Amino acid sequence: MARASNREKILTEGMRVVHAHGFAGASVRDIVQAAGVPQGSFTNHFASKEAFGLEVIDLYFSNSCENMRQTLLNDELPPLKRLGDYVDASKNRLLRNNMRTGCLFGNFTAEASGDNEAIRAKLLEVFAEVQRSLTYCLRAAVQAGELREDFDCEETAAFIIASMQGANLIAKAQRDPAPVERFKKFLFSCILR
Amino acid sequence: MARASNREKILTEGMRVVHAHGFAGASVRDIVQAAGVPQGSFTNHFASKEAFGLEVIDLYFSNSCENMRQTLLNDELPPLKRLGDYVDASKNRLLRNNMRTGCLFGNFTAEASGDNEAIRAKLLEVFAEVQRSLTYCLRAAVQAGELREDFDCEETAAFIIASMQGANLIAKAQRDPAPVERFKKFLFSCILR
Repeated sequence: MARASNREKILTEGMRVVHAHGFAGASVRDIVQAAGVPQGSFTNHFASKEAFGLEVIDLYFSNSCENMRQTLLNDELPPLKRLGDYVDASKNRLLRNNMRTGCLFGNFTAEASGDNEAIRAKLLEVFAEVQRSLTYCLRAAVQAGELREDFDCEETAAFIIASMQGANLIAKAQRDPAPVERFKKFLFSCILR
Repeated sequence: MARASNREKILTEGMRVVHAHGFAGASVRDIVQAAGVPQGSFTNHFASKEAFGLEVIDLYFSNSCENMRQTLLNDELPPLKRLGDYVDASKNRLLRNNMRTGCLFGNFTAEASGDNEAIRAKLLEVFAEVQRSLTYCLRAAVQAGELREDFDCEETAAFIIASMQGANLIAKAQRDPAPVERFKKFLFSCILR
């Protein structure tokens, strides 16, 4: 039981440290200190820092999936309303850290996808899953008559992922949600018509 | 003379190392090794790794400025053609590293802007200068009748910077220029009208 709990603390607190200081910038010592566990605990639970990084991405993604279930995939609400809610939920998630830390997936992509194939493959899975959810929502909007019949849902979903990542990135530099709000404005006024 | 030359080597080769492995991921030892200079040379020329990082951003930006002069700011060409050329030039710059390294500004933003105020301030200067050049080009397009008179050049310039950073980021994850090409397609078919 105690071992399982240390593992969880390392992941939860370690995710915060990585999110705040970057993957390379977060040392194992920083992580175990934040988790309040003995230094040896890290190697007991994770074969490598890479293995830990992959689980951090999974943990952050489980929260993203919950966001997507409540918004993009929520058949109770009109599809384009769900898409707007998804952008707002993502912005609110960034605001919890005062726009200081950005999106963990974007940070990992920028920092680690050039060097680390396992992390890059994991990020590609994440982006593919988000793209599927966005496509699902856009197709529902077509079916509901909110978008025209020949609307290219897959291409637009791919555009949204990228453009939103960029908005998150500039919002991080500026410590200001305005880029995400601007993205939403352009999305609804220019792209979704 | 020799000292000046070592300084240049550290910057030029150090920029490559930082671009490939990230700012935290690039140790001073990696940098001096790549530059082929003695370890002590780094501290002779740079007060800190932060001071080096700021100069790396300047060096990368001097190349960006040359790109902008030839495209966005080039009054010899029709304005929207210049904008398309700018996106292509940026893509070609990423292709030189096989889409593996992404945009250095985006990487620094993701990795270092949360922790380092001097680097964050430098990146804000860079983004502001790019935004001025994009705004200049869009205003020229309005004057040339390529865009309608009430087109919001400043807002669109801010959107372009963010959206293009996101395209660069996903292109890095996918090692594929398609996200940048998709950005250009959406820009010209949906935004610039």
